[in-house]
Amino acid sequence: MHMMDIIAAKRDGRELTTEQIEWFIQTYTAGGVPDYQVAALLMAIYLQKMNRRETVDLTLAMSRSGTQLDLHDVAPFIIDKHSSGGVGDKTTLVVQPIVAACGVPVGKMSGRGLGSTGGTLDKMESITGWSPNLTLSQFKEQLAQLGLVLSGQTASLAPADGRLYALRDVTGTVGNLSLIAASIMSKKLAAGADAIVLDVKAGSGAFMTTVPEARQLAQLMVDIGKDAGRQMVAIISDMNQPLGHAVGNALEIKEVIATLHGEGPPDFWAHCLEVAGHMLRLAGKAGSLEEAKEMVTAVRDDRQAWRKFRDMVKAQGGDLRQLRNTDRLAVARLIEPLRAPQAGYLAGMDAGAIGWACVYLGAGRRVKGEQVDHAVGLMLPAKVGDRFMAGDVIGEIHANDAAKLAQARESIMAAIRWSETAVAPLPHFYGTVA
Amino acid sequence: MHMMDIIAAKRDGRELTTEQIEWFIQTYTAGGVPDYQVAALLMAIYLQKMNRRETVDLTLAMSRSGTQLDLHDVAPFIIDKHSSGGVGDKTTLVVQPIVAACGVPVGKMSGRGLGSTGGTLDKMESITGWSPNLTLSQFKEQLAQLGLVLSGQTASLAPADGRLYALRDVTGTVGNLSLIAASIMSKKLAAGADAIVLDVKAGSGAFMTTVPEARQLAQLMVDIGKDAGRQMVAIISDMNQPLGHAVGNALEIKEVIATLHGEGPPDFWAHCLEVAGHMLRLAGKAGSLEEAKEMVTAVRDDRQAWRKFRDMVKAQGGDLRQLRNTDRLAVARLIEPLRAPQAGYLAGMDAGAIGWACVYLGAGRRVKGEQVDHAVGLMLPAKVGDRFMAGDVIGEIHANDAAKLAQARESIMAAIRWSETAVAPLPHFYGTVA
Repeated sequence: MHMMDIIAAKRDGRELTTEQIEWFIQTYTAGGVPDYQVAALLMAIYLQKMNRRETVDLTLAMSRSGTQLDLHDVAPFIIDKHSSGGVGDKTTLVVQPIVAACGVPVGKMSGRGLGSTGGTLDKMESITGWSPNLTLSQFKEQLAQLGLVLSGQTASLAPADGRLYALRDVTGTVGNLSLIAASIMSKKLAAGADAIVLDVKAGSGAFMTTVPEARQLAQLMVDIGKDAGRQMVAIISDMNQPLGHAVGNALEIKEVIATLHGEGPPDFWAHCLEVAGHMLRLAGKAGSLEEAKEMVTAVRDDRQAWRKFRDMVKAQGGDLRQLRNTDRLAVARLIEPLRAPQAGYLAGMDAGAIGWACVYLGAGRRVKGEQVDHAVGLMLPAKVGDRFMAGDVIGEIHANDAAKLAQARESIMAAIRWSETAVAPLPHFYGTVA
Repeated sequence: MHMMDIIAAKRDGRELTTEQIEWFIQTYTAGGVPDYQVAALLMAIYLQKMNRRETVDLTLAMSRSGTQLDLHDVAPFIIDKHSSGGVGDKTTLVVQPIVAACGVPVGKMSGRGLGSTGGTLDKMESITGWSPNLTLSQFKEQLAQLGLVLSGQTASLAPADGRLYALRDVTGTVGNLSLIAASIMSKKLAAGADAIVLDVKAGSGAFMTTVPEARQLAQLMVDIGKDAGRQMVAIISDMNQPLGHAVGNALEIKEVIATLHGEGPPDFWAHCLEVAGHMLRLAGKAGSLEEAKEMVTAVRDDRQAWRKFRDMVKAQGGDLRQLRNTDRLAVARLIEPLRAPQAGYLAGMDAGAIGWACVYLGAGRRVKGEQVDHAVGLMLPAKVGDRFMAGDVIGEIHANDAAKLAQARESIMAAIRWSETAVAPLPHFYGTVA
C-alpha cells in the first residue's frame, strides 16, 4: 500500500477502498505518513468528496485509532448526545441529569471550548472545586453508582481525529461534510454508545449556517452511526440567536440550575425537552416521544433531575454552597445594561458575532490553553420578534475590564438588526433526521 | 497576507492575485510556509487549475526566487533551448555547437538525469576528464571566448522550483499543466535567455503522451515566455520511439560525434536541423527557417560545428583522444544482438519502457545520487514501420551484467509490438507553436 496511490486515486475522483482508508489512518496514527502527504489527500477529499461508504470507513478507521470504550460492564445500555456547537448551548448540563434521573446512565467525556461556542467543562469549572479529571476506573465507578458522570478526555478516543483536525485547521480543509461527520462520529463511536442523539445547529451562530447544510450533515452522521450498528436520531435546531438567555460560564451554570428548578428560559427548556425526550425514547424508556417528554417534565418537576445534578457536582468535588446560593459563583465587577437603540422589533442577530464578543470579554478561548474568566458574559433575554421601545433594556453585559466591555457592547449592538415592522419569532427546530 | 486565505481562494476556484502568488513564493523560499500548507495549495491548484495570468505570475515569481543571470556583458543575444525530455535525446550536444559555429553564443546549465530519459551532463561525462563544474566567472569567460559552454547548476536558478518540485513529486501534484510550465519556464527565464526554443515531446516515452496535451503545454510555455518579454517558439516532436539509434551515455556521445560528421541517424539529424534552425532564426541569423537550415547543414558539412564541440570538450578538460578514436570511450563487456521474433513490420514501441530498461542496465538513475554506468545501453536502429524477417538483428544491448542483460532483453522485447501488415512510419514532428 502506498500513500501516493491513495492521493492519486482521490485526486482523480476515484473511490478509496476500505483497505486504503484503514491503511492510511493506521499508518498516519503510527507516524508513518508525513503531514504534507496527508494535507494533499485532505484537499483532494475536500474537492473530490467521499461517498457514504468511504465516509463510514473513514469514521470507523478513526474510531479504532485509539481506545474503544466498552461501558457495558457498568451500564446495560449507553446513550450519548452530541451538539454541533452553539452560542449559549448548555443543554448537556440539563439533559444529562434528566436522563440519568429517568434511570438511563449517562457518562460523557467532553472537550474544552475553543472559538465562539464555549465548552461544557469550562462551564462546570465555574463551580469551585469541581473537577473533570477522572481516571477511567473512577469514571466507570461513578457511572455505575450515580448513573451520571462528566469528565475530560479520560481515555484517548480516536487520536487520529485530533491529528487530522489540527492539520485540516491549517490547510483550509475543515469545511468538508465527510471530514466533519467523520471527526464527530469517530469520537462518538469510540466512546461506545449504543444510541446517539445528535443536535445539529443551523444558523448564524453555527458551523452550518443554513438548514439544508445542517440537514445534510445530520443525515450523513445518522447514516454513519446506523452503518456502525448504533441507534441514531438527529434534530436540526435553530442557532440564529443564543440558546436561552445566558452566554458565559457562571451565567450559564445559573441558567442550568434555574432550568432544573423549572425557572429557565422557555426556548432553552423546549430544547432540553426535545433532546432528553429523544434520548429516553432511543433508550427504550418510553414508547413515544410524547411519553418521553412527560417523563422529562416529571423528573424536573419533582426535582429528581436537580438532585442528580447536585450529586454529580458533589461526587466530582464541587462546592455545593454555590449551588444552594448561586450568588457565591463568580460575579463580574462591571454589569452594564444593553438598551434598544430604537423603537421596533428585534429583526435578527449574528449569533456568531455575539459568541465572539463574549470570547473577547474573556468567556472563551481564541487559542488553545488560554485562561477563561468564568464571571464574564452576556445575559440576553431579548429574542428575534420581540418588540421594544427605544431605550428598553434588552440585555446585560458582565465584564471585568472597561475597555473590553465597551468593545463587547459595540460588537453586540452591531450584531443585532432592528425592524419597524413586525418580525416573526424564530422556530426552535427545523425537523429531525432518523 | 495569510497562507490560509490563499489556500481557501484557490480551493474555492478563485483567481489568485499577483501579490498573493508573489508573497507565497517569496515566503516559501524563505522557509516561512510549512510544506503541509503548500501541499494543500498544490492539490487545490491541481484540481481547480490556474489561468494564464496566474501561471505567468507564478513562473515570474519562481524565476525571481534566486539568481537571475544576465549574460549580456559577454554575449549580445542569448538563445536557449529546452527539451521536455525523451529517450535517446542528445539533441543539445549537436545543436549547441552548430548554433555556436554560426556565431550565436550558447551557454547552458543542465541538470543530472533522473528517470527514464537520461541527462546531458551524464552523457558528456562519458568523456574522461570532462567537467561541468565551472564557477560563474569561468562559465562567462568560456562563453565570451568560445561561444559555447555547458555546465551544471553553476548559479542557484529558481530555487523555489527545486523545493516545489520535490513536494509535487511526493504529493501527486506533478501532472498539472500550469505547474509543469512554471517549473520549466522559471529556470529558463532565470537563466536570462532572450529567446527560447522549446522541444515538447509527445508519445509513449514522453511526459506528455498525446499530441494535444503536448501542444497545450507548449502553448502555455510559449505564452509565459512571451508575457515575460522573450522570443519563443515550440516544436512538438514525436517520442513514440527513441530519438536516433543510441540510448545510453557513451553510445549517445558516439552518435553525437557521428552526427556532427554527417553520419548520424536520419531521424536524429532531422530533429537537430529543426531545433537548430529555429534557434538561428530567433537569433536573427536567418530570414527564414529554410535559410537557417541551410546554415545548419553548412556548418556541419564544413566541420565548423564539430570543431566547436571539440573545443568545448577541450576547454572543460575532456580527453580529446576519445573524440578522435571513439573506441577509447567506455565499452560494455557484454554486447548481445536483439532479433525480430517474427517476420513482419515493427508496429509500435513503449519508448518509456525502453528508457527504463536502459536505466536498469545502469545507464540512468532510479533515485538521486546513483552512479551511472557510461558504457551500457541500447543501440536500436529499428524504427516503427521497418520490415524484418524472423531472426533479423534489430538492435544491440550493451551490458556489464548478465542478469541485467537478460532482464533488459525481456523488457525491451516486451515493449516492441509487431504487425503482419504494413505499418506507416512515425512522423518526426507534429507542428510548431509560436
